[in-house]
Amino acid sequence: AAHGTRKMEDYGRFLALLASTLLVGFVSVILSLVWVFHYREGLSWDGSPGEFNWHPVLIITGFVFIQGIAIIVYRLPWTWNCSKLLMKFIHAGLNTIAMILAIVSMVAVFEFHNAKNIPNMYSLHSWIGLTAVIFYSLQLFLGFAVFLLPFTPVPVRVALMPIHVYSGLAIFATVIATALMGITEKLIFALKNPAYSASPPEATLVNCLGLLLVIFGSLTLWMASRPHWKRPPAENAKILRPTGATPEGTEVESTMTNSSNADKSDLRSNTEAARKQNIKFDEAGQRSTM
Amino acid sequence: AAHGTRKMEDYGRFLALLASTLLVGFVSVILSLVWVFHYREGLSWDGSPGEFNWHPVLIITGFVFIQGIAIIVYRLPWTWNCSKLLMKFIHAGLNTIAMILAIVSMVAVFEFHNAKNIPNMYSLHSWIGLTAVIFYSLQLFLGFAVFLLPFTPVPVRVALMPIHVYSGLAIFATVIATALMGITEKLIFALKNPAYSASPPEATLVNCLGLLLVIFGSLTLWMASRPHWKRPPAENAKILRPTGATPEGTEVESTMTNSSNADKSDLRSNTEAARKQNIKFDEAGQRSTM
Repeated sequence: AAHGTRKMEDYGRFLALLASTLLVGFVSVILSLVWVFHYREGLSWDGSPGEFNWHPVLIITGFVFIQGIAIIVYRLPWTWNCSKLLMKFIHAGLNTIAMILAIVSMVAVFEFHNAKNIPNMYSLHSWIGLTAVIFYSLQLFLGFAVFLLPFTPVPVRVALMPIHVYSGLAIFATVIATALMGITEKLIFALKNPAYSASPPEATLVNCLGLLLVIFGSLTLWMASRPHWKRPPAENAKILRPTGATPEGTEVESTMTNSSNADKSDLRSNTEAARKQNIKFDEAGQRSTM
Repeated sequence: AAHGTRKMEDYGRFLALLASTLLVGFVSVILSLVWVFHYREGLSWDGSPGEFNWHPVLIITGFVFIQGIAIIVYRLPWTWNCSKLLMKFIHAGLNTIAMILAIVSMVAVFEFHNAKNIPNMYSLHSWIGLTAVIFYSLQLFLGFAVFLLPFTPVPVRVALMPIHVYSGLAIFATVIATALMGITEKLIFALKNPAYSASPPEATLVNCLGLLLVIFGSLTLWMASRPHWKRPPAENAKILRPTGATPEGTEVESTMTNSSNADKSDLRSNTEAARKQNIKFDEAGQRSTM
């Protein structure tokens, strides 16, 4: 009973953290819209600053907020009854949406620059940002080929999973760092009279937006890297699913948080313990969400 | 024998990665000096731009490079014979040096700003940077009180270790993001005629410096987050140390990469397996370094 209470508490903590993360992400998107509509030229697609403004809005909505959700989607306990295949499609789908929004947001900047005869790709922001988009696309393509298509042999999946997880988190962190550079650039270029250094209200608002992005990233990466908040291995799903459908992806459960070269015996006892523990966790989850 | 060969390969991979990381960090420090001496006003302490220049040099040397080394110092296999206490002192010592350099580098900026009547603390760079220094100092103070002083009870250490590890890595990533914002600011402010957007050689050099910082951070975080490259638990150290000195910190081995609420039986079998595995790893290490 004491163990069950602790699991309930842990589930409560997860939900509180998830709610905070979503709130911080949502407020970031709102602040980007307030910035663009209240302090800047709004949104348009005609080579004017209104076209540039799609850049921060789409990056924060897609490349930060939606990518963040895509990262933690496996952590949601009420999805642990869903097939792993479905969850992979949701993960890949959210990342595809994020990639499309990131690419559209880059097109907006290039068109704006070209219309105004501003050089492209000279800043550190642009160098790291383009690199991040290329790595993100590569990650999505390789993730699809290796973990969604059924052709890749199990040992290759097992070997590549820790790299997939680490690359994903590293790209996410890099995207947030790039957004902070972009905010810095834009405030310096756009604020004249009063300048950025005079701290007009717009500067304070957008600095707060930058802080929120750092908090959003930190919360997301914390949730993603807690081993006890991971989706339980598929053995578990088999037990929970009454229809006995074929479990998906049993073999690729090893991520950053599991030692990939643990002895066989460890793996077995870990799985056993995780199974016991996660059934309890899941029961707790269902009691409090249904 | 095949197992031993795999361990040797893994050890070789670790060494190659470590050498690359140190090289990238070292080149970053050199590039910051080239920037300051070849393209800028050099170093001085008189309220001139030469005083400001201590800021990038000390941040990259201390807050990035030395902090990075402090993070991976437990991962060096040839230190696994040293007492855990000694390694904790080295970890804390390197972080203290990094903190002092970060604080001196901030003083340089404040003095330069005050001498030139430039406002302080208006930019996102300064907001996040100051926050990072405060959290870093707090982390160092708490780490010292909880993990070095002998007063904290074991369950508190166990509960706080994953938070200590995560905070450390998150602050490190934030420091690099802040450095990238600082580079962006400085290049925009300092480059006039030709401007940053005209991509003069200085802009290209410093953009490359920014890229190297991202690579240094990514490599460091990869090494820090691989579970099989962790220092083996103290039980192991006891076996390896012939004098039979008291092992330190057995109880606080649980980090980000270990499930802190694993069943007792798991823990035992994990430790057993890690012990076997790490002795081999260590032997391999000694064969190739002595």
